[in-house]
Amino acid sequence: MTSLLIRNVRIMDGDAADILIRDGAIAEIAPGIDAPGVAVEDGGGLIAIPGLVDAHTHLDKSLIGWPWYKNDVGGGSLVRMIENEREMKKRLGIDPHVQSMRHALKTVARGGTLIRSHVDIDTEGGLRALEGVMETAEKLADVVEIETVAFPQSGLMIREGTAELMDQAMAMGADLVGGLDPCGVDRDPKGHLDTIFGLAEKHGKGIDIHLHERGELGLYSMEMILDRAEALGMTGLVTISHAFCLGMADFRRVDAMLARLAALDVRIMTTAPTSSPAPMVKELDAHGIKIGAGNDGIQDTWGPYGNGDMLERAKFVGLRNNLRMDEEVKRALDICAGGGAEAMAKPRRAMEAGAPGDVVLVEGETVVQAVVTHAPRKLVVKGGHVTARDGQTLVEAP
Amino acid sequence: MTSLLIRNVRIMDGDAADILIRDGAIAEIAPGIDAPGVAVEDGGGLIAIPGLVDAHTHLDKSLIGWPWYKNDVGGGSLVRMIENEREMKKRLGIDPHVQSMRHALKTVARGGTLIRSHVDIDTEGGLRALEGVMETAEKLADVVEIETVAFPQSGLMIREGTAELMDQAMAMGADLVGGLDPCGVDRDPKGHLDTIFGLAEKHGKGIDIHLHERGELGLYSMEMILDRAEALGMTGLVTISHAFCLGMADFRRVDAMLARLAALDVRIMTTAPTSSPAPMVKELDAHGIKIGAGNDGIQDTWGPYGNGDMLERAKFVGLRNNLRMDEEVKRALDICAGGGAEAMAKPRRAMEAGAPGDVVLVEGETVVQAVVTHAPRKLVVKGGHVTARDGQTLVEAP
Ligand SMILES: [Zn+2]
Ligand SMILES: [Zn+2]
Repeated sequence: MTSLLIRNVRIMDGDAADILIRDGAIAEIAPGIDAPGVAVEDGGGLIAIPGLVDAHTHLDKSLIGWPWYKNDVGGGSLVRMIENEREMKKRLGIDPHVQSMRHALKTVARGGTLIRSHVDIDTEGGLRALEGVMETAEKLADVVEIETVAFPQSGLMIREGTAELMDQAMAMGADLVGGLDPCGVDRDPKGHLDTIFGLAEKHGKGIDIHLHERGELGLYSMEMILDRAEALGMTGLVTISHAFCLGMADFRRVDAMLARLAALDVRIMTTAPTSSPAPMVKELDAHGIKIGAGNDGIQDTWGPYGNGDMLERAKFVGLRNNLRMDEEVKRALDICAGGGAEAMAKPRRAMEAGAPGDVVLVEGETVVQAVVTHAPRKLVVKGGHVTARDGQTLVEAP
Repeated sequence: MTSLLIRNVRIMDGDAADILIRDGAIAEIAPGIDAPGVAVEDGGGLIAIPGLVDAHTHLDKSLIGWPWYKNDVGGGSLVRMIENEREMKKRLGIDPHVQSMRHALKTVARGGTLIRSHVDIDTEGGLRALEGVMETAEKLADVVEIETVAFPQSGLMIREGTAELMDQAMAMGADLVGGLDPCGVDRDPKGHLDTIFGLAEKHGKGIDIHLHERGELGLYSMEMILDRAEALGMTGLVTISHAFCLGMADFRRVDAMLARLAALDVRIMTTAPTSSPAPMVKELDAHGIKIGAGNDGIQDTWGPYGNGDMLERAKFVGLRNNLRMDEEVKRALDICAGGGAEAMAKPRRAMEAGAPGDVVLVEGETVVQAVVTHAPRKLVVKGGHVTARDGQTLVEAP
């Protein structure tokens, strides 16, 4: 845990001040702080925002650093995309540690200080992906906090041995139990959900489940998730990623579900997708539901998009939710920073004393301008430790 | 009309070749072209793509160059946004010529060579916005081709005197007659459409109408538009911008409408919006409907987003339409370049002899990578005339 004095920044485009970080946390924000013996960075009047948070990604599967991967699979079939990925991973000989280093550092270069990564667990790759990402988490412990979710990407009930691997993954230290479309992929929602909730109970961990199922099917799976969360007393311990079904048109159905999600303090992670229905920020906010955002997989066999930039993701959240007012765009940023951390049950990143010493200095006239232009990140600080300057991480990617 | 030899580029990430532009058009693409007396640019192995086309924007209303405009109106009410804009324009004293110069050059810096701009015509601003944009079009004639649409942003039937101003705008030289939500804004679809089609007939021009109306209401307005296009024999002369209703869920209704649009060769312009239903590229392609894309208004009183970049817009088209295959992403780019020009009834921009000499050199491993990263534009050429280098236009913005 490090101490650092950042001089002369505009706090969220407000008044000029200094930020003193002591032992990894923000100790004081005020003009003209005197802190003898503490290292100093000159903020040069830049805007200071909290460290950015990618609350949903897949560090084990990007192809960053590889020659261009030509995609001829497309987005028609989920199963086909999953099979193609397993095949390509084997054929290319992807090293999950190397890829997760590259991906995580790309995120850090753009202001990321906290990442939740789903990690594939399947009978072909075994625990290799998790080992690789955990090695990255350890190596980058001072640079970015990485949480792992054991993720049965290829299905759980339909591939024998996967549940046992998930159990081992949790024993190895994965932070959460993952899951995936209990109706759509396994075609056995009861079996899938009983298994992952069983693992969560056994290991005393939370759940973060991918739910792409749309409309009534998604609401049905969501009900089955909430029934188990309720029965096991897992208030605040369940996260649903994507939750496309909450974007369905029937608002009566959605609103009732939002009320139940709020009652169980279920957290929602979104990418603010443009080609799917999606949970809407204002509707979730009206119920006080905690929201995080993520870039999801980037530059992988699923698609060529993505760059690890959570400030650009904040723009996407703004566009997707038709957020035009400055105050609304600031909420989009919050979802990609402090709010996202809170949704991950981590201390809220914020520009205030007591918050973690995660600070990003960006160019820009105002915070909203910085979001909509995803302005250059000049300095990234994690727990008082400088991790990137001018878009370059201090730790080099392999 | 200028001649230029661009040496050593990769044609759409294919083989290395030279591009010879003579008298404003591509004369030859081949390796090692010899063209004595013609100016030479070294392409340095960069990727050559066609000039980018913004087929739907509003050059008269951005606030580029002004101090940050704090938006506290939001996106709740179209009428409120329209009124706020008129009020702010007056209060700030926006000069449409200056703003359109700034906006157009921002687009050029990012590879734009052809722009269709809707221009507000209303009883407060009169013809000032059109005069300003036409002045810009004239000044930038060698830099970017600008087409204008006389656009009754504040309504046509509900504000007396607007139809007369529209008539004067067409007489002044506006290229197309615009229109806006005939049901939603004027609340008089017959009056609105009879007026704009009357103007189109009188002045022998085409129509490009904004249609945000959703679902059945939008389809109803669309039918009324098509009835008139048919009656007046305006095949190929009508464009519908946004056409959100084509994104409605009832595919039987949509598909029948697409067939009728195709029969009348109606063109569709889209921003690939993320918070609205939208016409879907693959569905329109299946009917052979010409599609263009645009950035719409950027950095204005409507919202803070946008930067004039049609390569980033191609990314948005890809994301919105779930385009993951390389071939699909290339179609997204085409919509923002050659396809967009075709939708504007302009010669198709393409990397082939006979096409206009509009060429953009971008960094990148492949074209798709250049799209998804909206990679830096190193050189922009319009009709053989270099207009921008390294993201900077040669003509300076006021
Ligand atoms: Zn995911
Ligand atoms: Zn428009």
